[in-house]
Amino acid sequence: MKFNNKYTLGKNVTVGNNVKIGDRTIIYDNVTIGDNSVISNDCVIGEPLNSYYTDEQYIQPITEIGEESLIRSHTIIYAGNRFGSRFQSGHRVTIRENCIFGHSCSVGTVSDIQGYSQFGNYCRLHSNVHIGMNSKLGDFVFVYPYVVFTNDPTPPSESCVGPQVGNYSQIATMSVLLPGVKVGEHALVGAGSIVSRDVPDYSLVVGNPAKKIKDVRDVKSRETGESYYPWPHRFSRGMPWSEEGFEEWKKNQ
Amino acid sequence: MKFNNKYTLGKNVTVGNNVKIGDRTIIYDNVTIGDNSVISNDCVIGEPLNSYYTDEQYIQPITEIGEESLIRSHTIIYAGNRFGSRFQSGHRVTIRENCIFGHSCSVGTVSDIQGYSQFGNYCRLHSNVHIGMNSKLGDFVFVYPYVVFTNDPTPPSESCVGPQVGNYSQIATMSVLLPGVKVGEHALVGAGSIVSRDVPDYSLVVGNPAKKIKDVRDVKSRETGESYYPWPHRFSRGMPWSEEGFEEWKKNQ
Amino acid sequence: MKFNNKYTLGKNVTVGNNVKIGDRTIIYDNVTIGDNSVISNDCVIGEPLNSYYTDEQYIQPITEIGEESLIRSHTIIYAGNRFGSRFQSGHRVTIRENCIFGHSCSVGTVSDIQGYSQFGNYCRLHSNVHIGMNSKLGDFVFVYPYVVFTNDPTPPSESCVGPQVGNYSQIATMSVLLPGVKVGEHALVGAGSIVSRDVPDYSLVVGNPAKKIKDVRDVKSRETGESYYPWPHRFSRGMPWSEEGFEEWKKNQ
Repeated sequence: MKFNNKYTLGKNVTVGNNVKIGDRTIIYDNVTIGDNSVISNDCVIGEPLNSYYTDEQYIQPITEIGEESLIRSHTIIYAGNRFGSRFQSGHRVTIRENCIFGHSCSVGTVSDIQGYSQFGNYCRLHSNVHIGMNSKLGDFVFVYPYVVFTNDPTPPSESCVGPQVGNYSQIATMSVLLPGVKVGEHALVGAGSIVSRDVPDYSLVVGNPAKKIKDVRDVKSRETGESYYPWPHRFSRGMPWSEEGFEEWKKNQ
Repeated sequence: MKFNNKYTLGKNVTVGNNVKIGDRTIIYDNVTIGDNSVISNDCVIGEPLNSYYTDEQYIQPITEIGEESLIRSHTIIYAGNRFGSRFQSGHRVTIRENCIFGHSCSVGTVSDIQGYSQFGNYCRLHSNVHIGMNSKLGDFVFVYPYVVFTNDPTPPSESCVGPQVGNYSQIATMSVLLPGVKVGEHALVGAGSIVSRDVPDYSLVVGNPAKKIKDVRDVKSRETGESYYPWPHRFSRGMPWSEEGFEEWKKNQ
Repeated sequence: MKFNNKYTLGKNVTVGNNVKIGDRTIIYDNVTIGDNSVISNDCVIGEPLNSYYTDEQYIQPITEIGEESLIRSHTIIYAGNRFGSRFQSGHRVTIRENCIFGHSCSVGTVSDIQGYSQFGNYCRLHSNVHIGMNSKLGDFVFVYPYVVFTNDPTPPSESCVGPQVGNYSQIATMSVLLPGVKVGEHALVGAGSIVSRDVPDYSLVVGNPAKKIKDVRDVKSRETGESYYPWPHRFSRGMPWSEEGFEEWKKNQ
């Protein structure tokens, strides 16, 4: 009962095969939606940029949603974004203009992406994540609820230096990455950390300001008592190595 | 002017007596709404689970809203939830599937309940609270804005061990309960705490990691200079002891 | 394509000249909208107070939106609010009743203002800010994402003593102002601070509990190596001194 063809399409919208679009969803001009995608109800795809309200010569940028994507209800995606295949959003997500997402990414309920940022493949942003402009995330980066990526070292200023996070790193809930910090690969930022300095590969950091307390390879699983990280050896749900295992998959990259 | 009968009802929806349903609200299949409830405008009740999009044999679980409830606008409640009487939500609340709420609970604006959790009676979640799956809250638990309940001890993993909070405990703003922690009864978690270990009954804990700094019975009211906790002796608005007082009420339980 | 005259107006609504109102937006009774304003789609202006649902004698308070305002989509503004000219909101903002905003203020996406608060001129609240009741902000106060202003010193209680923030002060991301704290002028509260005591003018405070670590005038710009604060000497975008400079502008106040 979600799909009664009560949506609105702008000009120059390309809708792939077997796409479902929910009621009251608005798709503005110059949007492409890949095959087999679902855009649920009450979404806005290609929300016009701010200049729309003031510039009579406004030109709407191109927006691309990759194939097999699922965008949940009440999500607002601005014009000028590009998503690879199998993108998923939660409800009420807001994504400002000019982001590039790789494939198989997800952004959770009520998250707020401020635009002009890059995301690798298989990035997972959970609920209520805030990504400031000019952020850069690698592949397989997971960001947990209420994490904030900032970009202004001396607020307010015209500086805008976003954080960078390397492949496989995990940023736990309620952490803040301060402007321009670089988190390496396979790092783990503990819950509630304020990260003011770069985080080396394989480091677990916690606290305010965040300090390295151990190598992630020394973190044990509560259940098995064995080392848990690097996590790709232990976790494969939804990952490209879910069948062959991380070792084998990695060899073939 | 909110109620012009412009809502949508699915199949097998049972609407009690004297219920108001706002415009553009969608009530999906297999939902029951108790007498004298108000479902305001632009709500979704019984949002279909994820399998709806992929499973042609999808079966919609039962959703129950207790009598005298007030669900404010733009709230999304998934199928499979059960709410006791006098439930209230703020605006834009999201509640995923398979939670059980006692009676007289409230969930504030933009809060995000991830599903599969239990709430006692008179639980009050303020604005922008995030409750991860498998959490368990007792009676009279109040949770303040931007609190996060987590459940994965080694992210990412398949573990999902939610926190538990005992009766009468208060979790102040911007705190995080880490996976599996048990907060006792009549405890007070101070603002901005990262709670990594169990909190005994009647304890005030603060900091990252949270440590006990005193017994709550030693916390004085700023206004009177007298001991304030256990709070049920001092606060009764909306509580079942509001007429007879906590002592008297407690005797009769 | 946003503006197809598919909105709803209540009684006694005064709409200025050259105002655009988006589709599905609802403007309730007793609202005034100033000239040249844009109310985008799916907004609610003058949302009725809670007593609307229960009080048959409900009287709708007056709501005023100043001229040249831009209210982005899905914003809910309760009745009884007054906004000066050039107000801007992000998406999905919620503003409860009886706030007074000066002119040139902005409130970012998904922020939640609990009502009964005062804001000077040129206040900028970024995304996902939570302002508890009885807060008071001066002029040129900037509040960054995920900041919470609290007001109950012994939760739960009937006390409601909001924080106060003086002119030009900056409250960085993920900070909490505890009930009744007074932040002076030109202060800087660092990211993730829990502010439990008053903050003197020109102080930089950080940590939990927040402590003064230096005078803001000793904070250097990363880019120039020179002192950056007081910031009005360095930053002027959108400020009233953007043409003549802060010194000159200040002389004429």
